[in-house]
Amino acid sequence: MSLDDVTLDQLPLREDLRGRSPYGAPQLDVPVRLNTNENPYPPPPGLVDDVTVAVRAAAADLHRYPDRDAVELRRDLAAYLSGATGVALTERNLWAANGSNEVLQQILQAFGGPGRTALGFEPSYSMHPIIAAGTRTDWVPTPRRPDFTVDTDRAAEIVAERRPDVVFVTSPNNPTGGSIPLSGLGSLLRAAPGIVVVDEAYAEFSARPSAVRLLADHPATLIVSRTMSKAFAFAGGRLGYLAATPAVVDALQLVRLPYHLSVLTQAAARAALRHAGETLASVATLAAERDRVVEALRGLGFEPVPSDANFILFGRFADAPAAWRAYVDAGVLVRDVGIEGHLRVSVGTPEENDAFLAASKEVPR
Amino acid sequence: MSLDDVTLDQLPLREDLRGRSPYGAPQLDVPVRLNTNENPYPPPPGLVDDVTVAVRAAAADLHRYPDRDAVELRRDLAAYLSGATGVALTERNLWAANGSNEVLQQILQAFGGPGRTALGFEPSYSMHPIIAAGTRTDWVPTPRRPDFTVDTDRAAEIVAERRPDVVFVTSPNNPTGGSIPLSGLGSLLRAAPGIVVVDEAYAEFSARPSAVRLLADHPATLIVSRTMSKAFAFAGGRLGYLAATPAVVDALQLVRLPYHLSVLTQAAARAALRHAGETLASVATLAAERDRVVEALRGLGFEPVPSDANFILFGRFADAPAAWRAYVDAGVLVRDVGIEGHLRVSVGTPEENDAFLAASKEVPR
Repeated sequence: MSLDDVTLDQLPLREDLRGRSPYGAPQLDVPVRLNTNENPYPPPPGLVDDVTVAVRAAAADLHRYPDRDAVELRRDLAAYLSGATGVALTERNLWAANGSNEVLQQILQAFGGPGRTALGFEPSYSMHPIIAAGTRTDWVPTPRRPDFTVDTDRAAEIVAERRPDVVFVTSPNNPTGGSIPLSGLGSLLRAAPGIVVVDEAYAEFSARPSAVRLLADHPATLIVSRTMSKAFAFAGGRLGYLAATPAVVDALQLVRLPYHLSVLTQAAARAALRHAGETLASVATLAAERDRVVEALRGLGFEPVPSDANFILFGRFADAPAAWRAYVDAGVLVRDVGIEGHLRVSVGTPEENDAFLAASKEVPR
Repeated sequence: MSLDDVTLDQLPLREDLRGRSPYGAPQLDVPVRLNTNENPYPPPPGLVDDVTVAVRAAAADLHRYPDRDAVELRRDLAAYLSGATGVALTERNLWAANGSNEVLQQILQAFGGPGRTALGFEPSYSMHPIIAAGTRTDWVPTPRRPDFTVDTDRAAEIVAERRPDVVFVTSPNNPTGGSIPLSGLGSLLRAAPGIVVVDEAYAEFSARPSAVRLLADHPATLIVSRTMSKAFAFAGGRLGYLAATPAVVDALQLVRLPYHLSVLTQAAARAALRHAGETLASVATLAAERDRVVEALRGLGFEPVPSDANFILFGRFADAPAAWRAYVDAGVLVRDVGIEGHLRVSVGTPEENDAFLAASKEVPR
């Protein structure tokens, strides 16, 4: 057996990982990439300049560990989120990590884990059950209605009955696009005995009020998670965050790896936040394009699911994987999220959306 | 109960976290900081320039997710490690994450976890049992000799008897400074039924050969972890990595959070690697200073533990916490690592070391 000849089967891997494949959308080199809900608009030059200046200053101290608690970044995030939601928040209410996936993993390390359960309304963000598995939290999948909405009264009954330690609610929901009104979230929060995570990764694309407004009524159970990956056009910078009561932040500091956020991440994210106004200007453009694409898809005889986000789930295909392949052959990368008869397309630039719509006329249904 | 009035006790926190405090050295603002084994020399101006240029280029694509598998960075790490150890490695043998803590967490997610055990020789790096707890891996502490060396014959017997799923061996060992010869590591590897992680965070400060040389003989069980935090003066950049058989890399891709390494981290680490020659030039200076400080401490009547790293454990103090406080009062931050009668000091610049030695004459023994 030489160094490079060992197979996965020969390693003492955990049994529950055997036979699994890594998560991830195919990273294919095609002209139009509309598969990972990225913001299609590159960061404005002023933001690039500011990130560069901030990183140069931070780089002089690269030999030192970063601020373990990222206090200044959390203060800036609090200022942004207070402005966006109208709810007064300070750095004590905010926590940040390398992408919202790491935020969610820390939440499950603190409030889930072996012997505990997490419940989600599927189809939803596929990383929720994966992170639950990674933290050995038992996953309780709960179906949405056939139209992908959540019956929140029924959901509240299920939550009251199953008593999960953590409930995940994605709003707007990925990959289906719809939001849950605050009144519905309130029902879930009243029913939940444990933590309720409202995953608002796509909140900026929705006109609905944020669940942050519910924090004051449910301080011991509500966590609202967010990301700079989508509206902020900062997917490459990896910055997820949450808003909650300060005690939740204390709890996450018990499980976070020390110095998890690099000086570069902290400096770059702060620079990007200073340009929030410019970056978020793309949101209105993308929302308008989303509505245009939805209409055009309807005009082509597709059934797009109403979306509050920067992507659209649409059908119906007799064979969605075959249709996905036909899009790739036409130079357009969309996402097969595993929902029978459907594909998901991210909203791109007008040109990218036109290319997608042109391809849509040709793909097999 | 208002948003900010909730206490940790009122949250549905896991029982095993209750009453715990977050990990971390105090981050105090004193003139001489010799408590976290950082490299005291700032990155050379050429490195700062190169990191800045690389980050500016990467920032133009911040709206896109990074390369999920960080292939180019892993190729550069393989080239560095091949050169440093004389063992031919490619990117298939390398894996990287946000600091070696995240590397170690991924290893325990794949090969440890509930129902599995990890064994370490204590005192050693205190994050090993903390990350074991975070992944719900049972920790099996095994004592070193009173002089902090490991009796590898006896250790091999214990490993054969206890059959841990993962063995951690830190060489050079933090916080005690000594290395384990390759022959001793070989004994442990022959006895171990599962994974053996040799944590070489401080390897560049030691003249001994790396455990990477043992990979060919133990491809299915040996993982060598490393970091850019110490010798590379890149603690703020957060880049840890490992060398192993490619199947180990496949296994870690099952548990890593997707897109865990930002474009900024990948670009900055690659830039820093291009300046390895300059940065690592500080290693010889620090090793010489380490030997000078050890001699000076002996001359003052202390008992420094022989060190292959960039820090020194030394005693004896009747009351180490009181001595730690006296050092702080003298403007010198050292580390109380919880070993009775001892403190740990990082090797700084000659001026910092002189300040430490001057303070050492005054502190209560």
